[in-house]
Amino acid sequence: MQAIVIHAAKDLRVEEREAGTPGPGEVLVSLAAGGICGSDLHYYNHGGFGVVRLKEPMVLGHEVSGKISALGEGVSGLALGDLVAVSPSRPCGGCSYCQKGQHNHCENMRFYGSAMPFPHIQGAFQQSLVAQAVQCVKADGLSAGEAAMAEPLSVCLHATRRAGEILGKKVLITGSGPIGALCVLAARSAGAAEIVVTDLSDSVLAYATQVGADRVINTASEPEALSAYAVGKGYFDVHYECSGAAPALAGAIPTLKPRAVILQLGLGGDMSLPVQAMTAKELDWRGSFRFHEEFAIAVRLMQLGQIDVKPLISHTMGFADAVKAFDLAGDRSQAMKVQLAFG
Amino acid sequence: MQAIVIHAAKDLRVEEREAGTPGPGEVLVSLAAGGICGSDLHYYNHGGFGVVRLKEPMVLGHEVSGKISALGEGVSGLALGDLVAVSPSRPCGGCSYCQKGQHNHCENMRFYGSAMPFPHIQGAFQQSLVAQAVQCVKADGLSAGEAAMAEPLSVCLHATRRAGEILGKKVLITGSGPIGALCVLAARSAGAAEIVVTDLSDSVLAYATQVGADRVINTASEPEALSAYAVGKGYFDVHYECSGAAPALAGAIPTLKPRAVILQLGLGGDMSLPVQAMTAKELDWRGSFRFHEEFAIAVRLMQLGQIDVKPLISHTMGFADAVKAFDLAGDRSQAMKVQLAFG
Amino acid sequence: MQAIVIHAAKDLRVEEREAGTPGPGEVLVSLAAGGICGSDLHYYNHGGFGVVRLKEPMVLGHEVSGKISALGEGVSGLALGDLVAVSPSRPCGGCSYCQKGQHNHCENMRFYGSAMPFPHIQGAFQQSLVAQAVQCVKADGLSAGEAAMAEPLSVCLHATRRAGEILGKKVLITGSGPIGALCVLAARSAGAAEIVVTDLSDSVLAYATQVGADRVINTASEPEALSAYAVGKGYFDVHYECSGAAPALAGAIPTLKPRAVILQLGLGGDMSLPVQAMTAKELDWRGSFRFHEEFAIAVRLMQLGQIDVKPLISHTMGFADAVKAFDLAGDRSQAMKVQLAFG
Amino acid sequence: MQAIVIHAAKDLRVEEREAGTPGPGEVLVSLAAGGICGSDLHYYNHGGFGVVRLKEPMVLGHEVSGKISALGEGVSGLALGDLVAVSPSRPCGGCSYCQKGQHNHCENMRFYGSAMPFPHIQGAFQQSLVAQAVQCVKADGLSAGEAAMAEPLSVCLHATRRAGEILGKKVLITGSGPIGALCVLAARSAGAAEIVVTDLSDSVLAYATQVGADRVINTASEPEALSAYAVGKGYFDVHYECSGAAPALAGAIPTLKPRAVILQLGLGGDMSLPVQAMTAKELDWRGSFRFHEEFAIAVRLMQLGQIDVKPLISHTMGFADAVKAFDLAGDRSQAMKVQLAFG
Repeated sequence: MQAIVIHAAKDLRVEEREAGTPGPGEVLVSLAAGGICGSDLHYYNHGGFGVVRLKEPMVLGHEVSGKISALGEGVSGLALGDLVAVSPSRPCGGCSYCQKGQHNHCENMRFYGSAMPFPHIQGAFQQSLVAQAVQCVKADGLSAGEAAMAEPLSVCLHATRRAGEILGKKVLITGSGPIGALCVLAARSAGAAEIVVTDLSDSVLAYATQVGADRVINTASEPEALSAYAVGKGYFDVHYECSGAAPALAGAIPTLKPRAVILQLGLGGDMSLPVQAMTAKELDWRGSFRFHEEFAIAVRLMQLGQIDVKPLISHTMGFADAVKAFDLAGDRSQAMKVQLAFG
Repeated sequence: MQAIVIHAAKDLRVEEREAGTPGPGEVLVSLAAGGICGSDLHYYNHGGFGVVRLKEPMVLGHEVSGKISALGEGVSGLALGDLVAVSPSRPCGGCSYCQKGQHNHCENMRFYGSAMPFPHIQGAFQQSLVAQAVQCVKADGLSAGEAAMAEPLSVCLHATRRAGEILGKKVLITGSGPIGALCVLAARSAGAAEIVVTDLSDSVLAYATQVGADRVINTASEPEALSAYAVGKGYFDVHYECSGAAPALAGAIPTLKPRAVILQLGLGGDMSLPVQAMTAKELDWRGSFRFHEEFAIAVRLMQLGQIDVKPLISHTMGFADAVKAFDLAGDRSQAMKVQLAFG
Repeated sequence: MQAIVIHAAKDLRVEEREAGTPGPGEVLVSLAAGGICGSDLHYYNHGGFGVVRLKEPMVLGHEVSGKISALGEGVSGLALGDLVAVSPSRPCGGCSYCQKGQHNHCENMRFYGSAMPFPHIQGAFQQSLVAQAVQCVKADGLSAGEAAMAEPLSVCLHATRRAGEILGKKVLITGSGPIGALCVLAARSAGAAEIVVTDLSDSVLAYATQVGADRVINTASEPEALSAYAVGKGYFDVHYECSGAAPALAGAIPTLKPRAVILQLGLGGDMSLPVQAMTAKELDWRGSFRFHEEFAIAVRLMQLGQIDVKPLISHTMGFADAVKAFDLAGDRSQAMKVQLAFG
Repeated sequence: MQAIVIHAAKDLRVEEREAGTPGPGEVLVSLAAGGICGSDLHYYNHGGFGVVRLKEPMVLGHEVSGKISALGEGVSGLALGDLVAVSPSRPCGGCSYCQKGQHNHCENMRFYGSAMPFPHIQGAFQQSLVAQAVQCVKADGLSAGEAAMAEPLSVCLHATRRAGEILGKKVLITGSGPIGALCVLAARSAGAAEIVVTDLSDSVLAYATQVGADRVINTASEPEALSAYAVGKGYFDVHYECSGAAPALAGAIPTLKPRAVILQLGLGGDMSLPVQAMTAKELDWRGSFRFHEEFAIAVRLMQLGQIDVKPLISHTMGFADAVKAFDLAGDRSQAMKVQLAFG
């Protein structure tokens, strides 16, 4: 079978690998769709990010769906041919964080396509994937592309649950890439009453509008527009920070009400923040990282039609065009979510 | 102007009353629509409920909308002709509960159409109503009937916020009258993943289906169906108890997961409850009573199209048919929400 | 070795049993102290409670401490001679509730001295006990009797954590047996500003006073005293219900503020409750059952001197006097906590 | 009467002012004790901080106690001669934040001794102070000096309540000035199981030890000591950041468990923070600013003996020595809390 392997920055190859065999409790998944994520792009463009660096070739990819092509011993609830969304998150279940229900902080996490431990955790962009049955959520009624969106949607649902209360709230989202745009859908599905999205690119903001943002602001071309919300002690109750850019976070502070919640999804290294103003407003900044039980919820809400991610799948490209797809995924003037069609 | 006045059980009259004049901060509302609530029916059928009894004639009604027909001094943000939903809740703002943000527990509450203090608080079923501007929420884009649904919807949104977390949860609703059916909409708007509704009447359950229940169960004709959810330690995460009937609450306990939340909206006097089983499961039973800031949220979510209450307005009758409307509203085999058209 | 075995109601025997050998990850504990709990008394006096009935002889006891007398393979952090409090709670770690951090709701719980599954889970009143190392919390600086109080104290700390906020709150405790009296200590350790305790017995109330209750009320001899707290909409913020008696719960409702939290620790079968009044006040009734991570916290807070349980150990009796000890433990006019000294 | 007035940086004067007369609902307080706070020192040393600058002479002081010397009309519950702690916080009660119970975010706050609005809000360092009766909390059983500590203690209790859960938790406090040291007491009163305090000065750390810190670390002389807590994914559950220094916050991150709560009390302008690491750990950073209902709780917990602030009152100086007292208060090698004795 073939897999998409990163060797170093800009050195991405489609390679032949040995297909695995499912053991007890495992299944073989014939991959159908795979979305390219920002972290995949970091490996592709820079060989890593921060202290996380490639040290050996690694299969990329962690946003995937496929069809069950073989069942290991003792697997129930799944059948050959089932379309499944495959969670890339594989916590150990036994460490103190798993035992507290904080599986995304597992001390022995094996998340697909991560260079963090060494040897690296190989990713899921491979035609045939051995996965644990518990990683697979049946996705009947969804397209393969939608099912592959369960992963980034889970990230946004996790952040939404960390917000505590969204019903009837006014929401600001800074950064309108795939995560920001999916946060529009996640916030709406939890009852947000008003959603404003900012970015520097009209192209990505158009997607936010399409999935239901009440207003979008291009802070490059309308630098003053957001400050209209800096009225009295503030306007927004909840802020999803999806850009990882300090100016986006700092610029939002005057528009937030006292006791507002900031959900940090964007990863941008160190940031210089107006901590004094944040303290005087008693803001509540919360990091949000990955997900756990939200994966099955993501599939379910798409199946119910509560969340429609289809407008955000901007491009679907063939397996053979992997390198081209990676280049496209990094181009914010053209792409929102770029997926590969295996198959 | 005319008003709908209850004198005693079964003695409901349309009477002439003096129209008021709006003072500073007040408006005059020309009433458009008024929904008949279960508590209105208690006054009509029984002259009160529990210790709350009629002692003098009282105008009924607290689910109303109308058009602004006069503005008192100093009112801004409202204009003649605006359609508004009028909140019947008038807390004092100064008592210790108001100062904690718990306005629904105001020590000096003046809620429309309540016999609780004496002299009674007159209700809103009058052609011309003087209201404080702060009670009025602009309802552009809604019909008068929808706007009048803001009140019972607020009750359900308040309960939903008290649930703490609904996103992705499995929800049971017992009792499918207007409150139960609106809880389907409220729970869905906050992201419920699965909603099962029970009642003793197929007629009202059909409405629950129409507004999105995933399954309805007639516990009279299918007495064993609910117990299919009593698997392992339980199935549902959240239970809205809208019937006020002890068997409905007690019957649900085996289907609830440990740590599940029960929201009690139904008012049914004393109840004999399986407290030992509830304790061993560490259930969290929470009373939910009226609302406060949810009123504006209700209007907003209807305007956004997130919540569509129209299927639940089963009948709209003329002012002159008030008595007939009250009789109909009490007939669960025919009616869901019955509204009066003032006009 | 000897063990205290219940065969049927009033048939308690000290019997010879085979001592075990610690396997990997296990230790042998030479028992030092064992407290008699209300559930032990139920087996002794009635052969069980509710649907939980003895079907075969069972070693009683789950409030125990002892000294490590042998170490199984791979055990670290414990040494021969260490005094340890032994948690009777043995969740599986793998079921869905354990994986959510709700170990007290484990689907495969093996809690010492429980007749619930069959074959029964044997208890800890045995001279030599094989336990998992993870059940043992080092208790240096405490007496054996104090260490054995870790278990009931954990129950009260768990309830306190479920209360959400105690700091500066006004607290009512109904029922002043060992659990009620330990709740005085638990609530104070979390910052309660005022604690009132009720019971029907002056004798047990004297213990509550001794451990810091600000006021005690004998509701038998002063039936009207509690109603002095039914002022305005209520007085208390938090209510620990430790009696399991419906009148105690119902009688407290008028003294509770709107949105007050009731923690139900007492187990008393079905109860007839004033649900309408509880709903209108939006009370929050929460079952509290057993504990998990509070066990180590209990030991730690005793070691720090934040909690002093010694006044509550009313009697310590020799192993040979087990039957006498059980009779005494049931006599509220004499006893608070009765412990057995193994040794 | 005399008052302590700041005219400009380093220009502090004891001046004659006209004593007021209490109106309805007000009292006259003959001041007894007044503590010097960090913000008083900012005015004294720098004429303000950040954008908050002196524009006219202002009476300083907001940590005060005194005896009631006259009662305005309609005041009940207070008597001549009562020792009271006087809250410097005077919210309006009517704005949207007051109505949500967030009085510390009042849009019309009049907090004693603040240069923020203009004309400035005069402070409480005056021999005779007119205050609203609701600002005064009876402090029988406390010394005047203790009563004057209610204010900074309230700040720390407010932060503690914002932490959500302290019972049994491991706590780190960075910065051991009066606020840091009072946080030791506040955290302990809420049940903290372990408290480690860091600072750059042995002198102030000695106070932390005296009020119950389990360990203190001088990060200047033992720069590596804190990193012993950076084990696995972290050690502390809660971090009170009382220094306002970015290195203190950044240095703590590796020692915090995932999902730990950081309470920011220190005000230090902009800070460069390791946001990526904070996000991956899903830390929860919460600003904490002033207090509201914690003021009465502070008095109560001191009266109960749960909190003993006396060791932190390092110096008490006469009114005439005001300037000397301000100089001393700024010298961390000598002083903890410096108070003035009026009287």
